[in-house]
Parts: sequence; structure tokens; C-alpha cells
Amino acid sequence: MSDHSPQFGRELWGQDLKEAEDLHEVMCESCRQCDLSNKLKREDLEAFVVRVLDAHGVAEAEGQIVARNLVSADMRGIASHGVARLGRYLGGIKAGYIIPGARFDIQDRGPAIAVIDAKNGLGQSASEKAMDLAMDKAKGCGVGVVTVKNSNHYGIAGYYVLKALEKRLIGICMTNAAPLVIPTFGKDAILGTNPIAFGMPSATGDDFLLDMATSVVPRGKLEVYDRNRKQMPVGWAADETGFDCQNPGQVLNNLLNRLGGGILPLGGRGEEFSGHKGFGMAMMVDMLCGVLSGSAFGNDVNNIKREVPEGEIAAPRVGHFFLALDPERFMSSGELQQRVSDFQTMLRESPKALDQTTIFIHGEKERIRATMHERDGVPIAENVLRTLRQIASDCGVAPPKTLG
Amino acid sequence: MSDHSPQFGRELWGQDLKEAEDLHEVMCESCRQCDLSNKLKREDLEAFVVRVLDAHGVAEAEGQIVARNLVSADMRGIASHGVARLGRYLGGIKAGYIIPGARFDIQDRGPAIAVIDAKNGLGQSASEKAMDLAMDKAKGCGVGVVTVKNSNHYGIAGYYVLKALEKRLIGICMTNAAPLVIPTFGKDAILGTNPIAFGMPSATGDDFLLDMATSVVPRGKLEVYDRNRKQMPVGWAADETGFDCQNPGQVLNNLLNRLGGGILPLGGRGEEFSGHKGFGMAMMVDMLCGVLSGSAFGNDVNNIKREVPEGEIAAPRVGHFFLALDPERFMSSGELQQRVSDFQTMLRESPKALDQTTIFIHGEKERIRATMHERDGVPIAENVLRTLRQIASDCGVAPPKTLG
Repeated sequence: MSDHSPQFGRELWGQDLKEAEDLHEVMCESCRQCDLSNKLKREDLEAFVVRVLDAHGVAEAEGQIVARNLVSADMRGIASHGVARLGRYLGGIKAGYIIPGARFDIQDRGPAIAVIDAKNGLGQSASEKAMDLAMDKAKGCGVGVVTVKNSNHYGIAGYYVLKALEKRLIGICMTNAAPLVIPTFGKDAILGTNPIAFGMPSATGDDFLLDMATSVVPRGKLEVYDRNRKQMPVGWAADETGFDCQNPGQVLNNLLNRLGGGILPLGGRGEEFSGHKGFGMAMMVDMLCGVLSGSAFGNDVNNIKREVPEGEIAAPRVGHFFLALDPERFMSSGELQQRVSDFQTMLRESPKALDQTTIFIHGEKERIRATMHERDGVPIAENVLRTLRQIASDCGVAPPKTLG
Repeated sequence: MSDHSPQFGRELWGQDLKEAEDLHEVMCESCRQCDLSNKLKREDLEAFVVRVLDAHGVAEAEGQIVARNLVSADMRGIASHGVARLGRYLGGIKAGYIIPGARFDIQDRGPAIAVIDAKNGLGQSASEKAMDLAMDKAKGCGVGVVTVKNSNHYGIAGYYVLKALEKRLIGICMTNAAPLVIPTFGKDAILGTNPIAFGMPSATGDDFLLDMATSVVPRGKLEVYDRNRKQMPVGWAADETGFDCQNPGQVLNNLLNRLGGGILPLGGRGEEFSGHKGFGMAMMVDMLCGVLSGSAFGNDVNNIKREVPEGEIAAPRVGHFFLALDPERFMSSGELQQRVSDFQTMLRESPKALDQTTIFIHGEKERIRATMHERDGVPIAENVLRTLRQIASDCGVAPPKTLG
């Protein structure tokens, strides 16, 4: 759902942040700043990620999973979850809380259920395994549910649902995340942006794919506003007293130093616009991902600075939830896909607001971008490229190969 | 999530609407207008509903299901879905599109899946059956999924999740509904308020129960504002051009006569506050309830005025989705319930915004009201009572018995 805006973690860029005035907040289809010098062929970008991970002890098979996942985000215009994350993953590997090649503990709990302990391994690797297992179970008995505990950041939630869609299954995927979001009537960030992804296969090559944070905006949006020195609208975030705050720098600084305040749940502050619903959705996600899986939940997620007993690692302990459902149990696959298509057409062709020309169905913009970027190259923002080149130089691998 | 506000359908009250200036928008715990003359013992109110339904050809067992469901909404302070709906159900029975005693077609589709054709029967009756079946399947293999098609209004979604919680299971329940909500960038109501209910059992008698419409507000909220001649805030509804509208009467009239406009999805108009997320949630609900079940979807739901072939009924064709999940497959029930309790305590005890004293967890307010109303009687607004007495008189049964 996110624009192709360069949305990167403040911690990734540090002092670089204030130099990055050239950063733009536009969709790549209308971008005038991207040229061949910051576009890459998808497979070259993936190969680069695999090389870098290999240099950090990640075996090729596992590196390819991470590469596919990160690059799929850049392909779809969700730069915040793309290769811009690579530096953070390497940081986790160096710090010891992301363990390449971790041997996951996979326990079968009957024909429809499995639970995975990711043992602090790479989130993408454990999650690809989890979704595959959920899909196998769905093929076997109609529905499969798999939880993952003790995991790490797993990229975009939609990636795993896309795997289900490839197999013409319905997919649901959620994850908890580092605390950034305050509960309704609270003032401290206790919940993550806890995304939900849901997909259903359609007949006409336009599968439905919803992939949304349960917060009103992602942190990356605040970072873009901060870099561009723009004031946020009332309803995105709260200051350290829990009151509305329009200064993105203040909120980001408060979050970084845990001074209070944070991003508001979908629906905004208080109950007037039903912020309690976004709050409830975020809780639901953490109930299934953190509480049910046996992982960390609430503000214990990603709490890597906490005290732990000798011999234990203070790891992020992220939890995920995967569900696959086989439409064939309900009606013929062809009929179902036609109905999904008809429903989307009903919405797409319904009358537009006076100031609008298009009703976008979820997954549509992202699919268009992915097709375009497969053909013309994946655009990577200049400062991300700079960091990737630095990473390459630091670990002695060939830099990413741009198209011009 | 709803206040105990008298929220009744405009079509129910007709000309009565403008007389109802005495209607109040308060929680019953602080209400000064309710006294014993408009409070009833729960069982007396249920018995009244059963009597009235019996007089309209509904067998006692089925009538009791509907009565428990409607009264549970009044008990929990969600008056919009309580006995105020009774008149509409009777209207459906008289018109022939709600068929008491309909023989549901229940098809087992393996150990975890079943599908039900409600044959235009009472929504509550088909749905209680569906949730029971989903729970049986969850007990058998960890998870159960049941869809219902060709159904009618089923009351509050949370009622069915409460059934799962009683058995210490996780429950999810959704339904599509009559079109009231406009898609992002659209101007016509294509989607229902499409609620999602989710519950998870907790150790300390405070089970988590989220029960929320995916729209920013329910229609009842507009009706309360209209009766009280209050202007709505920007972000609740759109006029017939798809632009912001603050006049509740205008929006209600447009909806009633299908002139365009309607309620906005959670997140509001456009994308600034992520209205496309609420839109996506509403689509997800209809994908699972309408599209997957084989029922009506989008603006075909509740389209009882459409042309149908000879011998067919133009029925609402509402669709529902039920899922039950057995926590025991993931960890011991005791441990899971303790974790749910700990998570809720973490949120409840977190620092409050400067203008607030309490962080409410979903289901908490409703549980408090239900306990209070069980003890002191269920408050029913004066004009609803008046209508119930009229109904009693019309069908020759004893009127509802108040406490004073």
C-alpha cells in the first residue's frame, strides 16, 4: 500500500539524514530523478544481496530467500522494506541476534497445525518454511495454520501471501514488530505497526492482495516528512504526553530514545475516528503472532537491550502467523476466481468521487510497478545505493551493478 | 465497541424520528434518564422476543437463539443490534425473505471445513450452527472454518466469538452487510460496514473480544447525530459527490434513496489517514463472507428489491465466515490464557495520555455493562419499548415486562 518513497530507518542513515534533501516522495512512475544510474536488473540486485550475505556467513540457499524477499519489496515500490534493510540485517548478524543457518525446530501438531521455533534465525528463511508448511496442510485438509516464534524481521508480509496466490490458495500472514504505536488513551509505544496481509486469487491476473500496517502510517512516512521538513497532519502521531503532535522529528527522536509518544493506530487519536479499532487490530495481530506462538509480545518485541541470563541472547524474538485456505473446498477454483474478479470489477467500475478518476484495488499499484521494474530495472534511491556500495567495499564483494 | 446509545434504523422509526428528541447518547452507567420503568430482567426480555417470534411462526428453539443473540447486544450496550431490530426481522418474515425453520443445507468438506446454505433462514440460527461446527472441527484437528451463504442479518458478530470463548477456543467471525460504505476514491456505497470479531481466552476472567465494523462509524452513529441535530466531524461520511459531508441527515437520506455517498471506511476519506486500509479490510471481509461462501457480495447484499426469476425470492443473501482455533495445539491452555492476561495487563498499565486515566481493552466495557445489566436489568430506550408494546399488541402476545 506504500508509495515508492525512500523510507529508511533513521538508525540506518544516522548523520547522513540531513544531507538527504535530494530524497523525493513520489511514485517511481512519475519520478524525474531516477535514471539508469540508479536502476538495476532484478537478478543483479538479488545476486548482490546473496553475495553480501554470503560474505557474512549466510549460505547461498538461505541468502537467496532473503534476497528474493527484500528485492520483491523494492520491485513493488515498498522501499522501506527492500534492500535498504540489508545493513540492519548485517548488524543483527554481527551482533549475534540473527543467526544464519539456525536449525529451526519444526513441530507438527496435527493435519492442520504446525509450530516453528526459528531459534533466532533469519526471519525470511523461517517464514518461507512456515508458509510452505501452511500451504501443504491446506492442500491436505483445506486449511493450514503455522506460527513462528523467536524470529527476526521478515520483510513485507505480502511476500508470503504471494506464495499462496501462486498456488491459487487464499493466504493470510501477520507479524508483530518493534514497538512504535501507542494504544488508544495511552502515551507510550507498546505495539508494533503489526501488519496484516491477505490475498485471494482472481481469474484475470489481478489477484487481490491487501498488505497493510495496522497503524495510521508507517514510521518511514514520518522519516520522509522529517527529511523534507514538512509538518504532519493531526492524527498521525502523538508526543510524549500522548497529545497530537505534528513535528515528525520530535516523534522520531522520542521513539528512538523511548521518551514516550509514537505513531497512532489506524483511526487516529482517541475514539472519535475509531482509533480504538486500529488499536484492536494491532492487538489481534500480536495475540496471534506473539502470544499464541510463544514469542515476545507488546513492548518486549525487539527488546535487544534487555538483561538476559548468562548464555542466552537478547534477541528480537519476533513472532509470525501464517494461514492458508484452499478455495477448492468451497467451490471450483475457476468459479471462485471469477467471483473475485467480478467483485473487484464491481468496485473498480463504481462511480468515482468528483476529484478522482480511479478506484485502486489492493495489490494493483504494486503489481503494475513490479511489472515495470522487471522490464526497466528496479530503482534504488541514491543514498541507499551509496550505502550498498559502502557495504560491498566493507566486506570485499563486487558492488551492485546498475544499468547505466 | 459501540456505546449504549439508542441507535436504530431510520426505516424502523419513520415519522417517529423527529419526535425522539428525548433520545440520549450516553453510556447507561452514567445515564440519568433510565429508571425501572424502562429496565427489564434479561430473561423477561428474552421470553418476550420468543413469544413474539412464536406468534410469527418461529419455533421455540429457534426463537430462543434469536432472543439470546439480540438481548446479548442490549446487555453489552450495543442497542443498535438489540431488540430494536425485532421489528425488521418480523418485516422480513412477513415479506417472505426470512424463512423461519428453513432446513439448512450443511455440507462437510473434510475434517476442518464445512459450508452451509442457510436457505434464507434466520441468520442467528444458521450462524449458531456454523460456529458450533467450526468449534467441533477445531477440537478435532486444531482449526475449523465454516462459511454460510444465503443468510440474513445475524446480530452482533461478537456473540458467536463469545461461544468460542466459553469453550476456551480462539474465535473469528465476520459478515458482509447491506451497502453503506464507499470505497476509497469512490462515491457510491458498495460495501457493508462488514464487521470483524476476534476473541482469545484469558486467565483472569477478562477474555479479549474485539468486535468492530470496518467503517469509521456505524450508521447508528449518524442517526444519533441526526436526531440530536449535531454536525458530524469531517472524516465520517461523504456526500453524493464523494466529498466530505458533515450533515448526517443528508447522508442518511442519500443512503436510503441510493443517491450516492455514504459512510467512509476506517481511516476516512482518501489515503491521507489510510482510508484505503479500512476499504481493504471491508473487501477482505466480503471476500471471505460473500465471495468464498457463494453468497451475494458488494452492493448485491440485501438487494431485496432486485428482479428475480419466477419462483425465486429476492432475499438479502448475506454471507458469514466462522473460524475456531484450539490454543491447546500451540501450548497448554493455562499458559496461553496467562500470556493473554499478561499482554492485556502490559497495555492496561502502560502510561496514560495526559487527558486520560484508563486504557480500555476490547470487550472490557461491554463485559462490565453485561454484568451490571444482569443484576439491575437491561435498559431499553423509551421509544424502542413503545415499539415493542405496539408489536405485542399487533400480534396479541403479552407486552414486555419492565421492572417498574
